[in-house]
Parts: sequence; C-alpha cells; structure tokens
Amino acid sequence: MTTKKFKKVLIANRGEIAIRVIRSCKELGIETVAIHSTADEDSLHVKMADESVCVGPAKSKDSYLNVPQILSAAEITGADAIHPGYGFLAENDEFAAMCEKWGVTFIGPSVSCIQAMGDKIESKVTAKKAKVPTLEPILVQDTDEAFIKKEVEKMGFPVLIKSSAGGGGRGMKRIENFEELWPALIRLHEEAKAAFGDGTLFIEKYITNPRHIEVQILADKHGNVIHLGERDCTIQRRFQKVLEEAPSPVLSQKVREEICDSAVRLAKFVNYDSAGTVEFLYDLDTEKFYFMEMNTRIQVEHPVTEGRTGVDLISEMIRHAQGEVSRFKQSDITFRNHVMEFRINAEDPKTGMPSPGHITHYHRPGGIGVRTDDYIYTGYTVPPHYDSMISKIIVQADNRANCITRAKRVLNETVVSGIKTNIDLHKEILNDPDFVESKFSTNYLAKKLV
Amino acid sequence: MTTKKFKKVLIANRGEIAIRVIRSCKELGIETVAIHSTADEDSLHVKMADESVCVGPAKSKDSYLNVPQILSAAEITGADAIHPGYGFLAENDEFAAMCEKWGVTFIGPSVSCIQAMGDKIESKVTAKKAKVPTLEPILVQDTDEAFIKKEVEKMGFPVLIKSSAGGGGRGMKRIENFEELWPALIRLHEEAKAAFGDGTLFIEKYITNPRHIEVQILADKHGNVIHLGERDCTIQRRFQKVLEEAPSPVLSQKVREEICDSAVRLAKFVNYDSAGTVEFLYDLDTEKFYFMEMNTRIQVEHPVTEGRTGVDLISEMIRHAQGEVSRFKQSDITFRNHVMEFRINAEDPKTGMPSPGHITHYHRPGGIGVRTDDYIYTGYTVPPHYDSMISKIIVQADNRANCITRAKRVLNETVVSGIKTNIDLHKEILNDPDFVESKFSTNYLAKKLV
Repeated sequence: MTTKKFKKVLIANRGEIAIRVIRSCKELGIETVAIHSTADEDSLHVKMADESVCVGPAKSKDSYLNVPQILSAAEITGADAIHPGYGFLAENDEFAAMCEKWGVTFIGPSVSCIQAMGDKIESKVTAKKAKVPTLEPILVQDTDEAFIKKEVEKMGFPVLIKSSAGGGGRGMKRIENFEELWPALIRLHEEAKAAFGDGTLFIEKYITNPRHIEVQILADKHGNVIHLGERDCTIQRRFQKVLEEAPSPVLSQKVREEICDSAVRLAKFVNYDSAGTVEFLYDLDTEKFYFMEMNTRIQVEHPVTEGRTGVDLISEMIRHAQGEVSRFKQSDITFRNHVMEFRINAEDPKTGMPSPGHITHYHRPGGIGVRTDDYIYTGYTVPPHYDSMISKIIVQADNRANCITRAKRVLNETVVSGIKTNIDLHKEILNDPDFVESKFSTNYLAKKLV
Repeated sequence: MTTKKFKKVLIANRGEIAIRVIRSCKELGIETVAIHSTADEDSLHVKMADESVCVGPAKSKDSYLNVPQILSAAEITGADAIHPGYGFLAENDEFAAMCEKWGVTFIGPSVSCIQAMGDKIESKVTAKKAKVPTLEPILVQDTDEAFIKKEVEKMGFPVLIKSSAGGGGRGMKRIENFEELWPALIRLHEEAKAAFGDGTLFIEKYITNPRHIEVQILADKHGNVIHLGERDCTIQRRFQKVLEEAPSPVLSQKVREEICDSAVRLAKFVNYDSAGTVEFLYDLDTEKFYFMEMNTRIQVEHPVTEGRTGVDLISEMIRHAQGEVSRFKQSDITFRNHVMEFRINAEDPKTGMPSPGHITHYHRPGGIGVRTDDYIYTGYTVPPHYDSMISKIIVQADNRANCITRAKRVLNETVVSGIKTNIDLHKEILNDPDFVESKFSTNYLAKKLV
C-alpha cells in the first residue's frame, strides 16, 4: 500500500464533530469542505471550513444522509477523502463502498470491517470466535432439562427468562436458583403461548449492576492494532450517554488489562483498521465483562481518551486512511490523569426533551484542565432538526476526586443563556454521594430522576 | 507545623492571574476575595470572586500596591490568607512579613527565602555557595596581569570588557583572545576615565547565543523539594517573554538533568518552600548554563509546566501554604507532550507599545490541546493603567512540530476585535524557519523586528 497525502477532505457531518475534524485537517495542512443543510447556513462548521456546499433541506434524510448530493459535493470540490464523523453515514457500509467506487477515500475502517461488526447478532458470533466473552442467550427450543441446566450452570445465576414475543417487561422473570428454574420455564411458556401466540423463551444472564465499559481501538492498514484504554460510560439516560469518564473507577488493573486485551484481540480478528470502539457490559458483582457491540467509527466521547493519552485520535484516523503506518506502539501509550466528559444538551433538564432556540449569551469555561468542543456562539440559534448536543466539556485532574471538584468549578463558569440545557443535571450528579463513591450502574439516572 | 485549612483567600492581584487563583480556590473549596482599583470595577476577576473590595484609584501604587488598604481588606472580609499572584507585591518581603504579623498567611515562600533570593547580586553569591554555576564578572581593580589572565582563562573566551560607569553599549568591547585582552583593558580604562570620570572595568563571559532556560521548583514547608522540568523562554522582546515552551528543544537529556538538579540544589540550600523558578542563561555554543536569578513566586508561564506534568501548581502552592506535605515525590512527576504558551498582549504589533481599548468581539479558541487563561470578554474595555497582557493561550501536542501546526490553527481561530494585539507576531514566529528549527537566541526578536 502506498501512502497518499490528502489535499482536501469533505466532512459529511455537522455540529461539533464537523469542527473537530476541520481542526485536525487544518493541523495536518489539509483543505476542508463543509456540507450543510439549508437550516445550517449559519452554523460554525460552515464558517470554519475552507469551502462549503449546501446538500439539501433541513431534514437529515434530504441533506446529511443524501448520499448522491454528498458524493456530488465531493466531486465538485475535488475532495479526495470524506470523514463521516459519528451518526449519519458513519457506519453505513454502502456509503463507504460508494465512496471507494467514486475514488474518494472513506476515512474509517474498510467496508468489510463495517459489515462484520455492523450486525449486532453477527458481531457477537464473531466475538465468540475471537474468544471474547459474550452474553449469549440460551434458546429454550426443546424440553431437554439436562441440557438447559448445563447451559444455565455455565451462565451462572441470576438469570432472566424472556419470552421471544414479549417486551417492555412482560413475559419476563428473574430466577435465582435451579429450584425456581424449571417450574418458571413451564409456566412462562404457557403464559407466552396464551398471551402472544408464541411460547418461545430465552434465558439470559441477569446483571444486577451493569456498567458500560468500552475500549478505544486504533489500528492502521498494516495490521498494527493498539488500545488506548477504557472509558466508563455508565451514566446514561434512555440509553443515551450523558457523562463519560476514564479510567473506570470500578475496574481492577487485572480486569482492565483483560478487557483491553479482549478488544485488541477482536479488532485483530476482523482485520480492523482505523479508530473504533469495543463496548462491553461489566458485571459489578461478579467482575466479569461481556462484549456488546463494536462501533466502527469515532465516538462522541473520544476526547476522554485523548485527555488520558495525549493522542489526537482524529488526526491518527486521517493518517491511517492515508495509508501511513501507526506512529504508536502499545508501549508508547501512557495514561495520565482522570478525565470526564460532560455532554451539554439543549434540552429540558426535567423531561430530557430537546429544547432548541436562540442563544442570547454563551460563555465558555477556561483555565487549567478544561477542553471545550462545541459549535455554538452568542447569537446562534440551535435548529430543532438535529441531535440536541451543543457542547462537550472535557475536564481533567490528577485524580477522580480532584476531577469532580474541578468539574464543578468548570460547570459553574459555563453560561448558556436563552435556551434550557442539562448543565444543572450534571451539577446534581457531581454532588451526589453515590456518584462520588462510584456506586452506580446504568440504571443510575432512571432511578435518580424518578 | 500543623496544617490549617484556609476558609477564605484574598487575591492581591488583577487580570488573568487573579482568575487563575480564584479557580484553584474554588476547586479547593476556599472562598475568595477580589481586590480592585476603581478602574477595574468591571473586571472579570471581580465578577468571579465571592466578594470584592475596592482598594483605591487606578494607579497601581494607590491600589494594587497599597499595602495598608489590602491588609484592611483582608481584615474586613476575614480572609485568612493572601495570594499575591505575580508582579505587584509578589516578591515584596516587607509585605510578606506584614501579612504574617497581621496573622494572615502569605501564600508564597517564607520571608527569609524572598530576602535571600531577592537581591540579584546576593543571590548569585548564594548560588555559588550551593555549587550552582554563575556568571561572575571579574572586577579589574589593579594591574595584576597574571591574576586577570588566570581568571579569564577560567572564564573562557569570548569575553566582554565593560566599563562600570558606561551603558547602552558605550565603553564595551568583545575580546576573542589573550593577545587582544591586555591592550584593550588599558585603552578602555583610559577611555572610561576620560568619558565618565571612572576607569573601573569588568570582564564578563560573552555568550554569543544565549537561551533563557528556567526550572520550575515546588517545595513544601517540610523540606521536600522537587523540580517540574525546564521551560525555554528565549523568545523575548525588550526582556519581556513573548512565547515560552517546554521541553527546551536545545537541551540534551544530560544537560537537562544537570540544570534541573542545580535548581533543586539551590532551592534546598536556601530552605525554599512554595513554588519558585530558577532562571539560567544557557550557552548554545558551549552547552554550559549559568544561574541568573530566582523568582520567588508563581510565574506567568507556569501553565507550560502544568501542561507537561499535569500538576496544578497554584493548588499545590495553596496546599503547601496550609502546611500540607507535598503530594508528589520527584519520581511521581512524569513529562508528556510539547507545550507552548503565547502571551497575547493588547499592543501595537509593530512598535510593541500598549494598545488598550474596547473589545468589540472576543472568540476563544477551542478543541484538542488548547488552554486559555484570560480575563477579557466581548464588550470589555482594557484599561490603560496596567500590564498589556490580556490572555495566555497554551497549546500542546505530542511533539514540537505538531505543537507548532496546532498552535497556528489555534491562533487562527482566536478573534480579538476592536484593539490591536500581537497575535500576528506569534503567527510570524511560528512560520519562521529559524523558529521551527530552534535556531534562535534571546536576540531573536530584536533581529527579526528590525
């Protein structure tokens, strides 16, 4: 493979991630093309890029997901590569394949990697082949009690019986031991048949206190794969991450190494290239971890890892897409400080519903240990059409306790007037003893916000 | 010594350093009192502190140097400690002594340390005693040619003959060898006697390519002294630092260790406590370094070191003033990345003269590897009474070349409208091959700006 310096990169995204990519391009001496919808004409990413092309009306499907328009924009402007950011077309293997067909480099993993990891069920099979622990449900297809007992024994209690056709808590039961298991299976099978016309059941491992742990992977196109440590993204609201941190305060060094090694093993198994993230569910009670999925793109929370390691992930992604050999070996990666990222959303803090509108005053925090990745400014109107995240505030300090006190100072300095935001929610979390003592699972916000 | 938690700290300063101290106090859970002159009523440090006291009219000597008013403000507000920042009263041993007399802790080194290092001539004698190399001039008091020859031999050529009464280049001559030395001494002695009525001469080591290298010291009140590496502050304009960086691109690891060890040795020799900086002149040609002076206070460029080490110097200063034992041993200090600080001054870039006034628009840079310590905002009027520095932009990346390209991106993002600044000067420096290749000495800007 020959390396080829990009002259011009088109960023197929908007908001803070578009600006993030523009910044790395500028630092690498690469020209940039912004695309935008008609609703985003005044958006900061358009002002910061060297060129911009309007690709359609406000609705994402007509603009930021409008593949023919985006590829035309690349052709018109002479862009030789496209960075998809996250969301929109970032994990769309057909788009990646079309880019390659049009002779435009897709800055991300190869089409085969996106395909291999794109299907949630298929990727678990692959993970199992790579000897990465997965949470495989037991399908209760027959009445072979001995077989099911053996499988459940491997899985370990507690388990959850789920009816295939049920949902939203219906047809589900948590089971603590073998005595309960068989009678419950018979009863739930009958109930499911009566209620949904389908008696098929699954048995799943029940995790009482799950934590969301993910590992950042960086790989070049020459087989060099390294990890950049884990991130703990357990604080979520309706499956949306709210606050991410690293290192995870609940992992022992032994488990940390195992989980990172697993992620590297999986990435190598699928010949992964580019930046990617392997997501795990971690069971606080048993200290076991299970593969959930792999995201074949850069993630919102990548600055947490950049803060810990000092590595610029977007620049490395671009370098790797150019065919360069990785500048880092695993032993070059050192970890320092505790880092937290706070997603600032234009939303009602009570309901979590989007709250776009006109920003009358915006004041960024400053000083030691603070990084801000945003796309808003005083006088900007947040459009209602897209994701409500307007800013990411990344805070670091020499340990977790100091990171928390610094983060309080930083959030108190931050001013976003004219619209509602979730800044107060972050402050509440930081002041909560359960958060301070790391006593929380992915259910944390659901419980706290009752 | 018992440790005592401060409840309230008065910051005897203004501008960005006042805000810097306020931030650390907030993170340590300490209340803050700002002082201000009548010209600084709208200044950001006043808005950010918990309380504020007006200590006098605009002129520094009537407000920020007005010791009785400042001590009264401490008494009225019940502050139990005073942080002096840099400049103003920071190295005033009488002020430090008065604070202690009034029962208010001076956050800085002990009075005896300030005194020991405060006198430029006395401190060189102390450094010599601590076996730290100094640049001691030879006083040509008699005509003992053999003695002078021996001393000059120790010093090494080139040397500079200076007349005690001369100045501004008059009565000076650079000498390359022994043949030139004696005739020149006789001639300059006669000339100086005729011109100034005083024939006293000095012989000094002449350094063709001097670099300004300084070492950050951190010491507690229990005899624990560590260094946090060096800073290279060679880029200066009329003896004012303009751009600082670390690590120094011209030091070998061997010299780096020697220079840092020398600084620690000197600090230990004078029982130094608190944060401090030992400044050296480094001779690029001979790779020798010479003690210049020690600054017994925090310095403008301390964020360069904070970026490299991850240590919060102001917080540690406050902890040490409280009597706490240092949280860091030398082996705890690790160094990462290349860091540069750009001093943004409200000044005419051509003349370097202050250019205060109304800021119509201010946009801070953001994203990876950027820290901003400033005190300005859109709509603020920079008063004409004080130092012209309005912001410090600190940039870091994984090596010097990447730090330079990132810094260009960052400076291009920065907008200060309505007043003149030196941002373009920084951009010129970053684009100059001599700077990029580290081929410069303290004369750099004087030569470039002709």
